[in-house]
Amino acid sequence: LRPLSEYQKLVEEGIQQLKYPSRPHQLYDPVQYMMSLGGKRIRPVLTLLAAELFAGDAAAALKPALAMEVFHNFSLVHDDLMDNASLRRGKPTVHTQWNMPTAVLSGDVMLVLAYDLLLGVPTHLLKEVLELFNQSAKHVCEGQQMDMVFESAEEVSLQQYIEMIGLKTATLLAACLKMGALLGNASYEDQELLYRFGISIGTAFQVQDDLLDSYGDSSKFGKAIGGDIAANKKTYLTLKAFELADEGQRTELQKLFSANDLKVEKKISRVMDIYNALEIKRHTEEARDSFYNEAMECLHSLKGISDEGKKMLAAIAEDLISRQK
Amino acid sequence: LRPLSEYQKLVEEGIQQLKYPSRPHQLYDPVQYMMSLGGKRIRPVLTLLAAELFAGDAAAALKPALAMEVFHNFSLVHDDLMDNASLRRGKPTVHTQWNMPTAVLSGDVMLVLAYDLLLGVPTHLLKEVLELFNQSAKHVCEGQQMDMVFESAEEVSLQQYIEMIGLKTATLLAACLKMGALLGNASYEDQELLYRFGISIGTAFQVQDDLLDSYGDSSKFGKAIGGDIAANKKTYLTLKAFELADEGQRTELQKLFSANDLKVEKKISRVMDIYNALEIKRHTEEARDSFYNEAMECLHSLKGISDEGKKMLAAIAEDLISRQK
Repeated sequence: LRPLSEYQKLVEEGIQQLKYPSRPHQLYDPVQYMMSLGGKRIRPVLTLLAAELFAGDAAAALKPALAMEVFHNFSLVHDDLMDNASLRRGKPTVHTQWNMPTAVLSGDVMLVLAYDLLLGVPTHLLKEVLELFNQSAKHVCEGQQMDMVFESAEEVSLQQYIEMIGLKTATLLAACLKMGALLGNASYEDQELLYRFGISIGTAFQVQDDLLDSYGDSSKFGKAIGGDIAANKKTYLTLKAFELADEGQRTELQKLFSANDLKVEKKISRVMDIYNALEIKRHTEEARDSFYNEAMECLHSLKGISDEGKKMLAAIAEDLISRQK
Repeated sequence: LRPLSEYQKLVEEGIQQLKYPSRPHQLYDPVQYMMSLGGKRIRPVLTLLAAELFAGDAAAALKPALAMEVFHNFSLVHDDLMDNASLRRGKPTVHTQWNMPTAVLSGDVMLVLAYDLLLGVPTHLLKEVLELFNQSAKHVCEGQQMDMVFESAEEVSLQQYIEMIGLKTATLLAACLKMGALLGNASYEDQELLYRFGISIGTAFQVQDDLLDSYGDSSKFGKAIGGDIAANKKTYLTLKAFELADEGQRTELQKLFSANDLKVEKKISRVMDIYNALEIKRHTEEARDSFYNEAMECLHSLKGISDEGKKMLAAIAEDLISRQK
């Protein structure tokens, strides 16, 4: 096993060596642009690591690992368009830098390019790899659709919310891990355990992300505190607050989340007062820890991975969850 | 061999039996809607027919054939969005019936569903089938991008235009034929001949489509004559006219295609006068016939198909080209 930074280096080099057709450049320039925006490359790293944790070879897993990163970036291009987001990693999003049609079409071709990379797996694994990939791709679309539906939905349950972040965020992390396990010839049981580890860790990660928006250290977190509240976003915190609120608090929350005439600082501080009264921070931490513990249980049950390997996975999990806690 | 109508029936039944996940219905309703709008289903029919023209079995080729139809409909959903078209087969387009995000995401999931269907091919053919599909999918994206670029381009050559319609329209027809040949265990040479047959026929078809817009019988064609001229669309006719025009005609064409103050009937009739003076109808027919003849040459060179089979393909080609001539 190598240090994580080496896997990251492999991925970065792999991305730089990806060749796109040169024409029409209006189609492939945005692909190049998006792939070079950087990021932690956590998904392909998970695939490489998982492959090596079993009997696999990271070099042989590189193409499918890059497929997962290209897929992730495809979904970002289209999500940014659908959400009308103007910035991604501090740079203009594709539809902002170019236009709507370019974002649609360059995203489409990225999805095809991801499938191209998947064709690099050993032939006897191709069908299984594609089944895993297709299932995950559909889940990501389903999660994004649910997220959009929730925006205008009157009532969303915590259970629905957990399902949505499972599909939208956790599925792809889980699929990256399982893809590596599959390429490393892991047993079916270990593949499933690693998948469930990924779902739980991905869910814990998203819950933590929600928590940081209201309770993070803004200097470390890099975003202003309360952004989700200001944007009326339904998060674990909001939904838990509605669940626990008494009649009066519920009415006030509803008023706050539909008020147009309120200063944003005032709105955030009044919502936070209710959060505090309901101990939302503690409840959210408990939910996060519960998903985290589920992940650790899966990790411990894995049969084909050394203790050293489990420690590496645990360290990644810890890092994902506790970043800027 | 069976009559074409039987292949069409097989395809229609196959489409009706396609199962989509039930949730979230906001994602899959538009998929169902789009797939049920009908159309000639020419692409999957070509795959089934090509498979049976060789040693293949149409039933065994059904899933990949449906994959081509789902892909085609994916591209229509996204093209309609990019071109801001409001009607498709007389019904509201997906982004009109729903909205932009739904059209993006339902289109995306259709592309994944196409790959799902491709997994139904025999395992030993899977990689080849996917390579063919990926290549065609990229070509379709590239053709659509070129088409959009041409809209605002000052100068487009006839050669560039032929390349564009080859990528945007002819590639998929050619890929459907080659897919069938591949599934029918055709020789590599016959696969390539059938592919080239498809490219030539697809190109002839698009040139004929351009011709009908200006010289068709509007009562049979179902569209008003001169729609392309009214919309300043660059077609084979426009580009040929610019190529053949003398200084004065070129200046007048440029004026006509940038005038805002001209009544549309007047604009069409004045452009048509120039077309007539330059014998654009004859030139376009010659181009169409030249592509058609290329296709027939490929057809005659095929080794693994009976004369009866070649006659069926020739009849389809004839039908595609001469519809409402």
